[in-house]
Amino acid sequence: MRYLIKFSYNGHAYCGFQTQPDLKTIQEELEKALKKINDNKKVKVQASGRTDKGVHALGQTAHFDLDIKITEHKLKRALNSNLPKDIHIIETVEKDSNFHARYMVKSKKYQYILNMGEYNPIEKDYVYQYNYILDIKMMERAIKYFRGTHDFRAFVTENVKKENCIRTISNVLIEKDKMNDEKVIITFEGNGFLRYQVRNMVGLLLKVGQKKIEPEKVKEILESCDRSKNGVTAPSEGLYLVEVKY
Amino acid sequence: MRYLIKFSYNGHAYCGFQTQPDLKTIQEELEKALKKINDNKKVKVQASGRTDKGVHALGQTAHFDLDIKITEHKLKRALNSNLPKDIHIIETVEKDSNFHARYMVKSKKYQYILNMGEYNPIEKDYVYQYNYILDIKMMERAIKYFRGTHDFRAFVTENVKKENCIRTISNVLIEKDKMNDEKVIITFEGNGFLRYQVRNMVGLLLKVGQKKIEPEKVKEILESCDRSKNGVTAPSEGLYLVEVKY
Repeated sequence: MRYLIKFSYNGHAYCGFQTQPDLKTIQEELEKALKKINDNKKVKVQASGRTDKGVHALGQTAHFDLDIKITEHKLKRALNSNLPKDIHIIETVEKDSNFHARYMVKSKKYQYILNMGEYNPIEKDYVYQYNYILDIKMMERAIKYFRGTHDFRAFVTENVKKENCIRTISNVLIEKDKMNDEKVIITFEGNGFLRYQVRNMVGLLLKVGQKKIEPEKVKEILESCDRSKNGVTAPSEGLYLVEVKY
Repeated sequence: MRYLIKFSYNGHAYCGFQTQPDLKTIQEELEKALKKINDNKKVKVQASGRTDKGVHALGQTAHFDLDIKITEHKLKRALNSNLPKDIHIIETVEKDSNFHARYMVKSKKYQYILNMGEYNPIEKDYVYQYNYILDIKMMERAIKYFRGTHDFRAFVTENVKKENCIRTISNVLIEKDKMNDEKVIITFEGNGFLRYQVRNMVGLLLKVGQKKIEPEKVKEILESCDRSKNGVTAPSEGLYLVEVKY
């Protein structure tokens, strides 16, 4: 029996989604909980994609196969009672055996949250505290260059030798939080994102917002396909995987 | 030189505000940071009052005397760079030597945050996850009995033998979060609160909201001055000291 799960996690205490030897990961916690439910037989979890150390998820997805038969409702409850408090199953759906949580993704939505107001220690691991004034209008001019289909090689981590870096960004938006106008939320939606791509795009946008570079420079860097032309990677605590669509 | 500080803290990792031998407290961290600034001479911090283990503050206040002279701005900066990331100085104000952060309090405001919607692991230490439906109208009927000047003996922790439990609650309010109507915020404002009083009032209000007791029962319990008539203490993670007025 194949199941799709939609789940959220607090990435602060984890070394990212994907299992790594001797490190605490979301995948390992999920597989540990599933093994208990699946009559102690190992279960392999296939997520929509990985997230890096410290990155959060409000709507990550994954699929797996169970040897037992269990209702959607009971599976949600059994998983949540076996998972640590920083991982939570929102929804479970029975699927055909040809469903694939990674290959069938239509789009993913990421959000990056910045706070330019007074630092709030409650949010220390959940927003990027940014103690500079940002020119949002300049950032809006820059952000439009990311929209569409591009080779995003200039926004991939340097040590990654990826064959195909062509991705389509369907929507990109920068807005102030409705409840607190000193908070800025940057939203990216697209058919897929490369490793560190969102955080590298945010890092460059912050340079634009600080007026260190012109918005048009973003276009130039994107077209250069050269990572060394780009700037800093924005820290993980501000990044959320918000939604995966099929 | 006497200074008043307004500060916020993430209470999750602390055993409350007040210094206790061998335990991690907010007061100890503040005094450690102040000692470094004050030419290595010990500084005694006097807060508006203590908060318990796990309780957060968005606007706690305290005063202390320094042997050195330092501008308000530099003191804020020096303190923040010497404090851990879960304590933050919002404001520093020079005061006359007769100012007292505890004795001169006019009112304090506390808020208690409940989430009745899907659990969000990002908020695990910052709201009380409450998986029952609450009848807000019933709670509104109950909450009005807290308003005014009463002997709150029935809402004090049982092992506390307090002489004077008379306090005045000037404002009490229950409302849904403007951004998320599955979140409920209960606000209490008054001239002072006894230990566990807010969490005990919230605990009883939750019984009303769950329709386990009638709103009128709150009046009866309050008038009984008997702690044993009351119910459970709501957990610390939902409680915030929001503001202290002088």
